[in-house]
Amino acid sequence: MPNQYIKIPEPTLRRLPWYLAYAKMARKHGEQHLSSTQIAQHIGVDASKVAKDFSYISISGKTRVGYELEELITALDGFLGFSNSHKAFLFGAGSLGSSLLDDDGLRQYGLDIVSAFDAKETLSGTFINHIPIHHINDFKRLQEQTGVEIAVLTVPVEVAQEVADLMVECGIRAIWNFTPYPIRVPDGIVIQNTSIYAHLAVMFNRLREEGEKER
Amino acid sequence: MPNQYIKIPEPTLRRLPWYLAYAKMARKHGEQHLSSTQIAQHIGVDASKVAKDFSYISISGKTRVGYELEELITALDGFLGFSNSHKAFLFGAGSLGSSLLDDDGLRQYGLDIVSAFDAKETLSGTFINHIPIHHINDFKRLQEQTGVEIAVLTVPVEVAQEVADLMVECGIRAIWNFTPYPIRVPDGIVIQNTSIYAHLAVMFNRLREEGEKER
Repeated sequence: MPNQYIKIPEPTLRRLPWYLAYAKMARKHGEQHLSSTQIAQHIGVDASKVAKDFSYISISGKTRVGYELEELITALDGFLGFSNSHKAFLFGAGSLGSSLLDDDGLRQYGLDIVSAFDAKETLSGTFINHIPIHHINDFKRLQEQTGVEIAVLTVPVEVAQEVADLMVECGIRAIWNFTPYPIRVPDGIVIQNTSIYAHLAVMFNRLREEGEKER
Repeated sequence: MPNQYIKIPEPTLRRLPWYLAYAKMARKHGEQHLSSTQIAQHIGVDASKVAKDFSYISISGKTRVGYELEELITALDGFLGFSNSHKAFLFGAGSLGSSLLDDDGLRQYGLDIVSAFDAKETLSGTFINHIPIHHINDFKRLQEQTGVEIAVLTVPVEVAQEVADLMVECGIRAIWNFTPYPIRVPDGIVIQNTSIYAHLAVMFNRLREEGEKER
């Protein structure tokens, strides 16, 4: 599929999971087809944008009928990477890290955390949700043995950059950064920032603004 | 503080937690002052942008000395809402929801989840991390008793919109949406989307693109 080699614009990539969520919802309601107009109405996006977004992943609808639902779901799941299993390491088995290890949803969406690492000696040899926790010193060896390329970063913010440097040095190629620190990495290394506490700050401020409007 | 009534641009709001994280790191290393140039270099933002961002929250540095670190941290923590406690409800005590209930980090950043709700009868009356889980039917009454205005949405995607509608109807004013569904709400209701599985898809795709570049 040569079109998979086209770089998809990030806004499109961010909308695809919305379409998938809506398509799965429609399937539950017994639908078999969806038109781009239906999707557009529910998601709040222009119908032409929906069709354009789908064209990036070679999905085309049929006149009058629309998109075949099963085909759409399979294509989106596959393209988004949710139907493959991607092995990953997690760094920092503190509060947020443990929570992510406990979340089976990640595996359903294609992320299979196979080991966690922590600097705390007392955690070494323990398990969370059947996932073993190793000492950070064992990371290099385990990376060499397994070839894992994806890492979830949930360490304390003070050591975020330092741990990220170590990861990259040892062969990690994509970092999912949950710390509020904007870590920097060499070209070619993928960073995905999900600073949930920063999102919280945005929400608190928007709520305060709304309160002030009413006064 | 009249300047708090200015609507802060979202990019600024998203950078403030980075400055805070860096300031806390500098404090650990024994620093007492930071210049906008130092901050800019570490974060990867222009120094003029840093100064401009701080001006929104009335923080000004001194020539040659820079920003006083304690003052900076207090101002940022306060402005971002992390030093206040905001009571919240959580909807959907499934895998991701339970994980968030377990994460004490949220409380440190100002979000105090006081109750969770779920449609599953068997969960009613149980606790996760000392937080009680109630049946969803008890939500209206508990909202009236407590006046809680913030809700965390971690229900299955098929019911996301329906539960969001119920929340808004019963007095919720800000929704932190973890589902991959772009829920729609009336004007004046704050929505913060944190679709972690959508972030995962972006990361998988970027990683694949990097792999293809090398071929």
